[in-house]
Amino acid sequence: MTTTDKPSTRDRLLDAAADLFYRDGVSIGVEALCRTAGVSKRSMYQLFDSKEEVLAASLERRSTRYEALFAPGPEEATTPRERILYAFRRLELASVAPDYQGCPYLAVLVELKDPAHPASAVARAMKERAEGAFREQAERGGARDPELLARQLMLLFDGASARSGAGIETLDGLMTATVGTLLDAAGVK
Amino acid sequence: MTTTDKPSTRDRLLDAAADLFYRDGVSIGVEALCRTAGVSKRSMYQLFDSKEEVLAASLERRSTRYEALFAPGPEEATTPRERILYAFRRLELASVAPDYQGCPYLAVLVELKDPAHPASAVARAMKERAEGAFREQAERGGARDPELLARQLMLLFDGASARSGAGIETLDGLMTATVGTLLDAAGVK
Repeated sequence: MTTTDKPSTRDRLLDAAADLFYRDGVSIGVEALCRTAGVSKRSMYQLFDSKEEVLAASLERRSTRYEALFAPGPEEATTPRERILYAFRRLELASVAPDYQGCPYLAVLVELKDPAHPASAVARAMKERAEGAFREQAERGGARDPELLARQLMLLFDGASARSGAGIETLDGLMTATVGTLLDAAGVK
Repeated sequence: MTTTDKPSTRDRLLDAAADLFYRDGVSIGVEALCRTAGVSKRSMYQLFDSKEEVLAASLERRSTRYEALFAPGPEEATTPRERILYAFRRLELASVAPDYQGCPYLAVLVELKDPAHPASAVARAMKERAEGAFREQAERGGARDPELLARQLMLLFDGASARSGAGIETLDGLMTATVGTLLDAAGVK
């Protein structure tokens, strides 16, 4: 294997891992993972110490996509209120995809039930960043209690992603009304 | 095995299954399950067709405890508003237990990712009953849109249980304030 091959093996493995863990859950084995990625187990273990590390790295790799929900460009949203609502509009749009299974970070935390797992640490960090982004907009928008509002928004965000991912909620017309009520109550115009 | 032994084998198996699946997730194998329950695999397969059926029955068996959250006695809550808040207060109390992993029904849906699994059907039914209980109280409480309010309350309930179960939220002081805001906005006095 040459040095230039290595990134592509790694990328292939992490993309397959992200798709497979998201679709079927964290209990997917190394065999199935390597088969799907078209990567030998030997190559996998040259790159990563364990399946746990592959899972963690695959979540890290998708973080840009997740963070984009909370960082709209100026053409997408400008005021703090719009920027908060943007994340929920994007969530609502994502949730209608037939293969939508909810937020991958929340799912990993629910499935692993193990705070010490390296993938749990990645998932927790993503959730903290999301909450931090909401808190920042809440502050900028003049919320009476930005900390409280950010926590409330995360409850809604994770509740909505889990329920729509599980097929027990369609989110249709739900997010804008609910988030709007909380923003109004917090004094975010 | 005598007929009178059968219920106790079944109960032992279902209690162990409920504890084990809740603690470690749905991928727990038949070996570990039977070992923990102190039940032979032969006995298990005499009672149930598959591990899937054991999981479904173990969720069904715990349903009374879950439904109690949404059906307080008259000494615990009287008005519709109080009855709705009661469920969230109970959730907040439950969430501080060191072994709390969130709502078992939501967890099973997130973990299985399979609407056709018999345990998914049980979990969905429980979630529908909870939403129905909220809707009934919303109607009785004069909510402008009882359907909308019930869906909002379920978002909060499942968001709160998932986040506190995953150790990324403490719920401290969060539920009463948030639910109160939604009840106020819906016109439930």
